[in-house]
Amino acid sequence: MNFEEKIDLLNQLLEENRFKTLREEIVELNEVDISEFIEMLPKEKAIIVFRFLPKDLAAEVFANLETEAQQRIIHEITDQELGHILDEMFMDDMVDMMEELPAGVVKRVLKNTDEATRGTINAFLKYPKDSAGSIMTAEFTNLRANMSVKEAINYIRKHGADSETLYNAYVIDSNRVLDGVITLRTLLLNRDDEIVSDLMEDDVTKVHISDDKEDVAYLFNRYDYLSLPVVDSEDRLVGIITYDDIIDVMEDETTEDFELMAATIPSGKAYLKTPAWELARNRIVWLTVLMISGVITGGILSRYEESFTAIPLLVTFIPMLTNTGGNAGSQASTLVIRGMVLNEIEVSDGLKVLWKEFRVSLIAGLFLAVINYIRLYISYPGQEKVVLVVSLAIFATVILAKVVGGLLPMAAKVFKLDPAIMAAPLITTIVDAMSLMLYFVLAGWILNL
Amino acid sequence: MNFEEKIDLLNQLLEENRFKTLREEIVELNEVDISEFIEMLPKEKAIIVFRFLPKDLAAEVFANLETEAQQRIIHEITDQELGHILDEMFMDDMVDMMEELPAGVVKRVLKNTDEATRGTINAFLKYPKDSAGSIMTAEFTNLRANMSVKEAINYIRKHGADSETLYNAYVIDSNRVLDGVITLRTLLLNRDDEIVSDLMEDDVTKVHISDDKEDVAYLFNRYDYLSLPVVDSEDRLVGIITYDDIIDVMEDETTEDFELMAATIPSGKAYLKTPAWELARNRIVWLTVLMISGVITGGILSRYEESFTAIPLLVTFIPMLTNTGGNAGSQASTLVIRGMVLNEIEVSDGLKVLWKEFRVSLIAGLFLAVINYIRLYISYPGQEKVVLVVSLAIFATVILAKVVGGLLPMAAKVFKLDPAIMAAPLITTIVDAMSLMLYFVLAGWILNL
Repeated sequence: MNFEEKIDLLNQLLEENRFKTLREEIVELNEVDISEFIEMLPKEKAIIVFRFLPKDLAAEVFANLETEAQQRIIHEITDQELGHILDEMFMDDMVDMMEELPAGVVKRVLKNTDEATRGTINAFLKYPKDSAGSIMTAEFTNLRANMSVKEAINYIRKHGADSETLYNAYVIDSNRVLDGVITLRTLLLNRDDEIVSDLMEDDVTKVHISDDKEDVAYLFNRYDYLSLPVVDSEDRLVGIITYDDIIDVMEDETTEDFELMAATIPSGKAYLKTPAWELARNRIVWLTVLMISGVITGGILSRYEESFTAIPLLVTFIPMLTNTGGNAGSQASTLVIRGMVLNEIEVSDGLKVLWKEFRVSLIAGLFLAVINYIRLYISYPGQEKVVLVVSLAIFATVILAKVVGGLLPMAAKVFKLDPAIMAAPLITTIVDAMSLMLYFVLAGWILNL
Repeated sequence: MNFEEKIDLLNQLLEENRFKTLREEIVELNEVDISEFIEMLPKEKAIIVFRFLPKDLAAEVFANLETEAQQRIIHEITDQELGHILDEMFMDDMVDMMEELPAGVVKRVLKNTDEATRGTINAFLKYPKDSAGSIMTAEFTNLRANMSVKEAINYIRKHGADSETLYNAYVIDSNRVLDGVITLRTLLLNRDDEIVSDLMEDDVTKVHISDDKEDVAYLFNRYDYLSLPVVDSEDRLVGIITYDDIIDVMEDETTEDFELMAATIPSGKAYLKTPAWELARNRIVWLTVLMISGVITGGILSRYEESFTAIPLLVTFIPMLTNTGGNAGSQASTLVIRGMVLNEIEVSDGLKVLWKEFRVSLIAGLFLAVINYIRLYISYPGQEKVVLVVSLAIFATVILAKVVGGLLPMAAKVFKLDPAIMAAPLITTIVDAMSLMLYFVLAGWILNL
């Protein structure tokens, strides 16, 4: 049975008030699916279904719900029920939730946690939005360096239930300074009497609370870690970041790149869940800037008014020429931006990119110019000179567009800007102006205008 | 010490022939870093460094090398050394390598594996390129349902060394049919005398050998799995897929989307490592198609030649108008494409998208039209009617562009095409034609041309 069929079955059971079967079916589901089901339900039914869940599952489902649904449930349940859920939740999920909830609800949530948790939550909430601290969790397994493998495994079995992962254990000294890391794999594959300090990795890859989460994602990606330790300025272990949160970071960063590259201010929300006025606001800024920058192309065109009133045919090719330039430029900029995101291209590779785009544009420009020449030569008999102007303009535009498109994202990086803003929309605007200028200069020479 | 500093140190040690220290330093590094260091070295030095590595580390480093470097090393080492490396390598890495190596080298590699491995490699090589089978590995841990927790843990400790992950164990029956899955976490957190079949998840999420790897990535992403079992048509467990390979799949798919959205044929290679002629070839196809589709805008413009020779000022605003349309359209199409990739937007949401884009475009179009009217009214005194034409054209273009931009990616999906091709370049071309038509029709009415 796939997810949709399961949802249909659950809805039917709910409608027929067959709560016992419903409960049996629902606890078999993954918490992600249960959350999605609850989000689909009207308020009263959502709370009925939520109350069916056993305690730990309820906490997992709750952590997966979107803020609105969390809020609705908090509103309906007792303080005691809320306390149970909060007890079972991981710190990173709790902090994520707190960041979104309105102040009044946060107050009630904090009231229902114990004092230690309250302190940790307040500390975690202070970490900057994009920092490692903002995505870490406080529940990890720590071992002592002098434990034997047997002691370590027993310790994990006894105390591990609250840890977000058991698969990496962190070795700390009495001041909580991070000394090493050991995987559960290493523990299990070694003899019981071996000592943790002999087996652990002591040159630990770690991140600092204030490190940018994108840099943390890069480490996970490069080395395939399951989790990474987060330390404070005294090298004390304060939390861990797990791969599942990093997958979300990677996905959000990619979405942000797509949005930036389409000249939209990133919203951090799913498309269908963003109100129309908010989508409009995020898009208007760049649309306006780019529209007003049309003053440049307008200026160029009005300077050459005499040329195109003398030979109106010249106007016919303007959209084709500017589009080809825009496309050629955004091909280059997109590939370079993506290469920079993947750390395949560094700022120091500037000359390599320049040389590569130059060769690519020579090949592509020549090809397009020839195709264009042949096509127009046949379609516009007797206009050989105009056809030559258009073809030469295409050749030069492709070269210019690709070189500019390849270099601008790198220039952005040098000036500490996100390379993604140097994408199609901006490149198109810049290349448009250059290609129109070229076109009319060539027309002036060849057609004696 | 960061990666660059380490590399400098290693290079210095290598230059000074201080091999003992070099070896000590190098075995402390992560295999990913060692691979990158070896790839930077000239051939003779690369093989010296590679031979310093202990056996298991050598296999891990080897698996991380790019094909060219692997080939150089295979060429230099003895059959016995090659056999040792192959023994230690995981099946998925071996198959990845085989797919890239030239036939002669593959032959030599196969000769140095045992018969069982050779059979598995040959079977794995037959799975289609984008299938689950092509990214799975054959080394997993399997348990029997009637084992106790203690027996299971002992079994894993004894037989787990060759498994790619110990953290999910698969329960199979005597016909290798998949019966359940149990995490190492569950095993460790339960009492020694509990029975695996009582603890395991028996409604196992699994994928079929021929499933598309993008669908597999979606499952990992939705449910945060560490690994998923792969079964054949008789439901027999044939391999597993681990999260690290899925991160690569996700990254490749995203790169492919970026390439497609920039009207480039995906190359599957890093930018700096793709030869110029290959980059040119991947870009020329769409550039040519889009350039030739300029015949449409050209046709429209030549139909209205009389209009713009009568009022040449109209030409001045063409690039601004078409760019605004292109940008407005690609904002919509990019967000919808990304939403579809993330499974946030389904084809059945078509009406919702239409309604949303319609409202967004009303707001954005009105705003842009007003700004434009004010700007042009000031800049072009006495041309109120032309200014009105341009502003109305912008308003209508933004609406058209956003609705078309929002719907075309969904239409692509209906026709089983990748929505990513309905991105900026194609949308721009389509919207250009529509906006120019609108512009001159409006000009005809309002200016009586």
